[in-house]
Amino acid sequence: MEFSSKLLENAISEMAQLPGIGKNTALRLVLHLLKQPEDQTIQLAKALVDLRTEIKFCENCHNISDADLCNICSNPNRQHNLVCVVEDIRDVMAIENTSQYRGVYHVLGGKISPMDGVGPNDLYIESLIDKAKSGKIEEIIFALSSTMEGDTTNFYIYKQLGDPDIKTSTIARGIGVGDELEYADQVTLGRSILNRIPFENSLKS
Amino acid sequence: MEFSSKLLENAISEMAQLPGIGKNTALRLVLHLLKQPEDQTIQLAKALVDLRTEIKFCENCHNISDADLCNICSNPNRQHNLVCVVEDIRDVMAIENTSQYRGVYHVLGGKISPMDGVGPNDLYIESLIDKAKSGKIEEIIFALSSTMEGDTTNFYIYKQLGDPDIKTSTIARGIGVGDELEYADQVTLGRSILNRIPFENSLKS
Repeated sequence: MEFSSKLLENAISEMAQLPGIGKNTALRLVLHLLKQPEDQTIQLAKALVDLRTEIKFCENCHNISDADLCNICSNPNRQHNLVCVVEDIRDVMAIENTSQYRGVYHVLGGKISPMDGVGPNDLYIESLIDKAKSGKIEEIIFALSSTMEGDTTNFYIYKQLGDPDIKTSTIARGIGVGDELEYADQVTLGRSILNRIPFENSLKS
Repeated sequence: MEFSSKLLENAISEMAQLPGIGKNTALRLVLHLLKQPEDQTIQLAKALVDLRTEIKFCENCHNISDADLCNICSNPNRQHNLVCVVEDIRDVMAIENTSQYRGVYHVLGGKISPMDGVGPNDLYIESLIDKAKSGKIEEIIFALSSTMEGDTTNFYIYKQLGDPDIKTSTIARGIGVGDELEYADQVTLGRSILNRIPFENSLKS
């Protein structure tokens, strides 16, 4: 595509670097901004730069945060001896949105994946082990995705913990609430039968 | 969705104002920027602000431009007595990409649409009429979309011209190159039969 303006071309090529945004979408977004008041573009630009330059990561759980400690770690009403290990900030948000979890988190920043060149030292695993060894943790919940990489990471951390005093658990895998059995995949359905729970427990939530 | 950071929330809500980008996509884009070098975000922001604050519109054809005259209007090799009337900057790009047109453009900035509160005075129609009356134009090609609004706009301009010396034409409507007849809609197929062209003409391009 040829553009009559260098400024336009530049804005489009920067926009098109974002994932899932091609040249055509970038053009549409940029032309939209041109039709809106100047303020909107300036505020968008400012918000992005502020975020990128001023954002912090929580010293304790590595969650995204405005302060040194995130608002979950600094909340005295959360159960600080219950730690949920997740891959990403998005997982924290997803779990927080359920309003079912009152513990704290530990964001690894990814999964062990030799194929992508991600080893244990590239993730925040050491700080989790240190936390566990400090004796303040009662239970660790593994909430990584159940892929080969996720399972590897879970197992690596489990081995590193090596402490029988800490309870470890993993989130339940099974048929989604509202899903039909006939459309469930075999592995999920198999696991949900093996890991069946007492009927009374299902009445609680 | 709840966010642990005001900066993040702010960036997401600004991003989500763009058309076709919801909160979830905005989150994905913003988290992507966080993982990239700081430079990328700063350059994106700068490109957007530069575009919005420094962009000009061509004095002659109202196309987007870095200078007072766009590079089409200032090109001596273009046919300046042949003017193609389009709705939007994107239409200019689409036609330019075909490399089949050597004339110049006139960007209206929209279509007459009383439903959306767009009247003739909201568009660059007057400057087109002035150009036409200056006697320098030989042919005007209407290349608006063939909707009710597009047809209304064409007809309004045609009436305003009121000059039998200027040739007016409209781009050909018909079956797309490579399309199957059986899937074409009735109106398009009907028009393509009514406006059939001598077979020799079809051999030229």
